[in-house]
Amino acid sequence: MTMPAAVPPVAQNDGIRIIPVDGIPEIRQGDHISDMIVDAIASSLATLAPGDVVAVTHKVISKAEGGLIDLKTIEPSPLALRYAAEWSKDARQVEVVLRQSRRILRMVRGLIVSETRHGFICANAGVDASNVSADTVCILPEDPDGAADDIRKALMRRFFPDRNEDDSAIGVIVTDSFGRPWRSGIVNVAIGVSGIAPLTDYRGQFDPSGYELKASILAVADELASAAELVMHKLAARPVAVIRGYQWQTDAMSGSGKDLIMPEERNLFI
Amino acid sequence: MTMPAAVPPVAQNDGIRIIPVDGIPEIRQGDHISDMIVDAIASSLATLAPGDVVAVTHKVISKAEGGLIDLKTIEPSPLALRYAAEWSKDARQVEVVLRQSRRILRMVRGLIVSETRHGFICANAGVDASNVSADTVCILPEDPDGAADDIRKALMRRFFPDRNEDDSAIGVIVTDSFGRPWRSGIVNVAIGVSGIAPLTDYRGQFDPSGYELKASILAVADELASAAELVMHKLAARPVAVIRGYQWQTDAMSGSGKDLIMPEERNLFI
Repeated sequence: MTMPAAVPPVAQNDGIRIIPVDGIPEIRQGDHISDMIVDAIASSLATLAPGDVVAVTHKVISKAEGGLIDLKTIEPSPLALRYAAEWSKDARQVEVVLRQSRRILRMVRGLIVSETRHGFICANAGVDASNVSADTVCILPEDPDGAADDIRKALMRRFFPDRNEDDSAIGVIVTDSFGRPWRSGIVNVAIGVSGIAPLTDYRGQFDPSGYELKASILAVADELASAAELVMHKLAARPVAVIRGYQWQTDAMSGSGKDLIMPEERNLFI
Repeated sequence: MTMPAAVPPVAQNDGIRIIPVDGIPEIRQGDHISDMIVDAIASSLATLAPGDVVAVTHKVISKAEGGLIDLKTIEPSPLALRYAAEWSKDARQVEVVLRQSRRILRMVRGLIVSETRHGFICANAGVDASNVSADTVCILPEDPDGAADDIRKALMRRFFPDRNEDDSAIGVIVTDSFGRPWRSGIVNVAIGVSGIAPLTDYRGQFDPSGYELKASILAVADELASAAELVMHKLAARPVAVIRGYQWQTDAMSGSGKDLIMPEERNLFI
């Protein structure tokens, strides 16, 4: 029984900690979010340990890069006006959703399920009106992987100054909350990843019964995102958490949040 | 700003621990799984703390209640034979999937996505061939909520003997790994729940910007299930984990894993 690099060793018995990081101020456009996260982690945890995974809510990244859209500047298209009128929605907000989409899957009962320019399929193209001011909506970051990579490198420089910043001592995931077909409620998922492989492939491995695991690719970055949400909470406006003690391979530098997007040819529900 | 019962207080700064529980032996039909989980937790953690959530992989429950199906006893139907022949599958295994389904959503490229008798929509009706012997498949538990409730009551009797067993000092979730449309990889979700509300409803609450949260129902039981998976691992055959330090309401006795099933009229992807 061989153990390819993709399979992590079993977690030690002391388990995993999910540590909330406080001290991130309200973010404004132009803020250096990486530095603010580094400072907040330094204040609350002193340092990071090798193997730590840092989860960051996408909203602070969007705010820093100017992803807050002032609805007063938005001229709704005829489609947005019609759909908003039919379902008593804000036409300007519908327009932002349409502009953030590259394909619409459903427009039903006032809902819009669409594919974002990144390729994520989700409600409202990830456009969100919570945790922002009135007449404002927040769009997804331009490049969630790039943002995760910037944060990871800043953390490496501060907490692992003796290592090369491309040494994957830590992982960073950028998160959002997505709804799911067939299941109620939203859950946190990973939309950007750096330094950690988002999928763990157990195929070709053998379970304790000697059965070869054939369909066992775990979306560990999504599971880590969900775990982080447990200390984030919407009302707390706590955008950062550290997951400590999760056993993962540190040599997987090729990870991307887009690895979590199902390839078009495997999509059964379009 | 009022805070209804459904919204938990913010987690304390010491965060959450996900603690693996070792010492569950290989399960056979007729085993008293609740007692075995109680004993394993007593051995590895000594006791439970109020507020602990215990996550249990469904497979140990299925095995105990006789949910291992010997494929040599299965006579495939003509539909199962045809589909299996077309896609080089085991017709007996396809037959078990059909028998576990009450509705088929997709039969494509050898895959089957269907609705189980419980109402869960997932691949292969939850029928799984990993972690069991050859020529055997494992079906979902008959009543995942009931199993969660039995385990919770056994844990209450052992670790909180002074309390009524219906006092919700702890939560129990029964988990399975589901694939998702549009996203690669599987993640752990909750299919049975006892003692904890599976959804946390933030609607009517106000975020720190004063914005009312309108579409913010979090599937916390699914996030807890995903967090638990991080210490379970398929290859480790470690079916139990304890999540300690998550802040949730302990007065929600009406929770059910079926609360996580989207009502038919809201289903956009059938």
